[in-house]
Amino acid sequence: MNCEYCYKLEEYNFGDLLFESSYWIVFLAPNQSNLGTCVIALKRKARYLSEVNQKEWSDFIKIVNKLENSLKTAFKATMFNWGTLMNTFYLEDTPDPHMHWHFIPRYDHEVKFEGEIFEDPFFGYMRPRPPKKISKTIRVKIIEKLRDNL
Amino acid sequence: MNCEYCYKLEEYNFGDLLFESSYWIVFLAPNQSNLGTCVIALKRKARYLSEVNQKEWSDFIKIVNKLENSLKTAFKATMFNWGTLMNTFYLEDTPDPHMHWHFIPRYDHEVKFEGEIFEDPFFGYMRPRPPKKISKTIRVKIIEKLRDNL
Repeated sequence: MNCEYCYKLEEYNFGDLLFESSYWIVFLAPNQSNLGTCVIALKRKARYLSEVNQKEWSDFIKIVNKLENSLKTAFKATMFNWGTLMNTFYLEDTPDPHMHWHFIPRYDHEVKFEGEIFEDPFFGYMRPRPPKKISKTIRVKIIEKLRDNL
Repeated sequence: MNCEYCYKLEEYNFGDLLFESSYWIVFLAPNQSNLGTCVIALKRKARYLSEVNQKEWSDFIKIVNKLENSLKTAFKATMFNWGTLMNTFYLEDTPDPHMHWHFIPRYDHEVKFEGEIFEDPFFGYMRPRPPKKISKTIRVKIIEKLRDNL
């Protein structure tokens, strides 16, 4: 992590660093039940989407394009869910709200990768799934595969 | 509705027209269980967020700012969920995927408006709620209130 703020972000448990842009950091999310799920966090404190400035938006739009293309090429993802919800920050004993996006690739097919099978049994629906147990090695391989296609 | 495409959008049941910009149409969503919930639909066919072009993004960003400010002023909304999921289009017997956003204001308090009480019992969480039964008159009043604050 290069900046002071990125360091601070570690307490949020957004996942493993995939890449960084000028204004955002992209993490491979802890839960890979949907292969390639990422979190995209702003590199400064913001609580509302309407606080994101012009430069940050332009930078974010490039990330949208990069991630969708990367996932289509790497794993033939069918489509994508994008959302910035920010809900959990408003529960008790949680860190300050921090602007971030969820990127969830969706699949109408199963993907075999490095000996693991990744499925999307609720394709067409939004239903949270428990984290898929995968080894650290597989996580690193997913990161490498996505980076190769960025 | 001014354009051919807007007319076509009627089959999607996105709600009642709130306002239109150059590239998007903003609807008051059918389900007002969270007061001020809107759908923002692109005025041309697109399936992926990465298909949205620069002009459309700039226009969308203005809508983000307008809606968040409007809801803060009109109903003192606490925070907001934004998402483009597109899931249901991939089920059987559904219309073609059509790029649209969901905007869901969230409240840490109840709002009394025109004799109706609007609550957000799952504040801090994402849990779909059944549509709140409100009269057409109340829907029109909500639209007027938001338009007054745009």
